[in-house]
Amino acid sequence: MKLQLALDTVNVEEAIALMEQCQEWVDIIEIGTPMLIEYGLDAVRKVKEAFPNHLVLADAKIMDAGELEATMCFRAGADIVTVLGVSHPTTIANTVKAAKKHGKMMMVDMIDVEEISKKTKVIDELGVDYICVHTAFDVQGEQPEPLAELKIVNQVINNSKSAVAGGVKLSTIRGVVACKPDVIVVGGGITNQEDPAKTAQLIKEIMEEGNATT
Amino acid sequence: MKLQLALDTVNVEEAIALMEQCQEWVDIIEIGTPMLIEYGLDAVRKVKEAFPNHLVLADAKIMDAGELEATMCFRAGADIVTVLGVSHPTTIANTVKAAKKHGKMMMVDMIDVEEISKKTKVIDELGVDYICVHTAFDVQGEQPEPLAELKIVNQVINNSKSAVAGGVKLSTIRGVVACKPDVIVVGGGITNQEDPAKTAQLIKEIMEEGNATT
Repeated sequence: MKLQLALDTVNVEEAIALMEQCQEWVDIIEIGTPMLIEYGLDAVRKVKEAFPNHLVLADAKIMDAGELEATMCFRAGADIVTVLGVSHPTTIANTVKAAKKHGKMMMVDMIDVEEISKKTKVIDELGVDYICVHTAFDVQGEQPEPLAELKIVNQVINNSKSAVAGGVKLSTIRGVVACKPDVIVVGGGITNQEDPAKTAQLIKEIMEEGNATT
Repeated sequence: MKLQLALDTVNVEEAIALMEQCQEWVDIIEIGTPMLIEYGLDAVRKVKEAFPNHLVLADAKIMDAGELEATMCFRAGADIVTVLGVSHPTTIANTVKAAKKHGKMMMVDMIDVEEISKKTKVIDELGVDYICVHTAFDVQGEQPEPLAELKIVNQVINNSKSAVAGGVKLSTIRGVVACKPDVIVVGGGITNQEDPAKTAQLIKEIMEEGNATT
């Protein structure tokens, strides 16, 4: 079970400093969409240079021009790129083509996908590495972590692995771990805490206990 | 009827040089998603600085964190920002909040929206400036320009204006103009032509004829 740290602060230097504290506990470093909008692929290049032994994910949320946009991210050093589950299956397939060509990975962000089971079946056939259920930041007050969706994805997938994102924090991590995702994405649940490194450690330890009891 | 030129070349300097040739015929300069991924908001800053009297659109295709991401784009100089029609209505509403605060505009990109009429009714109530029907680049071989969708949007809207994007070119512009969108987006139909300026001029002239016969 991998811990993905979503760096949504807009400043690359601050993000790198934060990651330095947490690196021991983090498997995947996410360059969040706001940072990508502000800095473009320079953010990916700088973070990959600073942490060459970590997996770096570019949260590009690709919606169209799948092969072009995924290729750009891989060339900048991303190991994983996100494409939206609401995009056309051809777009997702085109990003997979780019990933296979570069020996890299695609994660599908299922944010705002309406028919999770039906759509997951289609996407699972396309060769993506991860399918990530995701409660949008804009509705996190209204909706809990998408654990019901995670259970559906885990039942449906035959090829892809599962991931979960959206408001996960230390106080809720046990419930998330119990649903057995392959990747858990935490953002503000680590980055906005008083002691991000300690919080990352505690979260990772609970994830490892979860693995041990599997 | 406004002509929006989508600059999808990845290089900002080339895009500015191309726009210099076409500026007389273009109303809205679009910083395309690939350029935004590569350069981040520096692309918006540079293009707005080069063309302060044109409207500049950042094709950020916002899917979440609507207020934050739209605000970032407006602060960088964008006059119009795109948000995805497939995103949660709260996200769209949050981008509108940012636009109103900055005296700027939002365009909703209806790419891959399934129930156009139903969704347009919802979005039209949210206070966005433009609703843009859009055939994805990844499916332009399979699907024609979205004129059927444009007709539906034009029937449904009471508050927003309409726009159309996806594979529009000189050979098809008359049919698009006949459907009376408020904005026509052209990318490769101008930028990939032997004489982009002349093509932009011819397209704009046909659009103005269309306006005159309305």
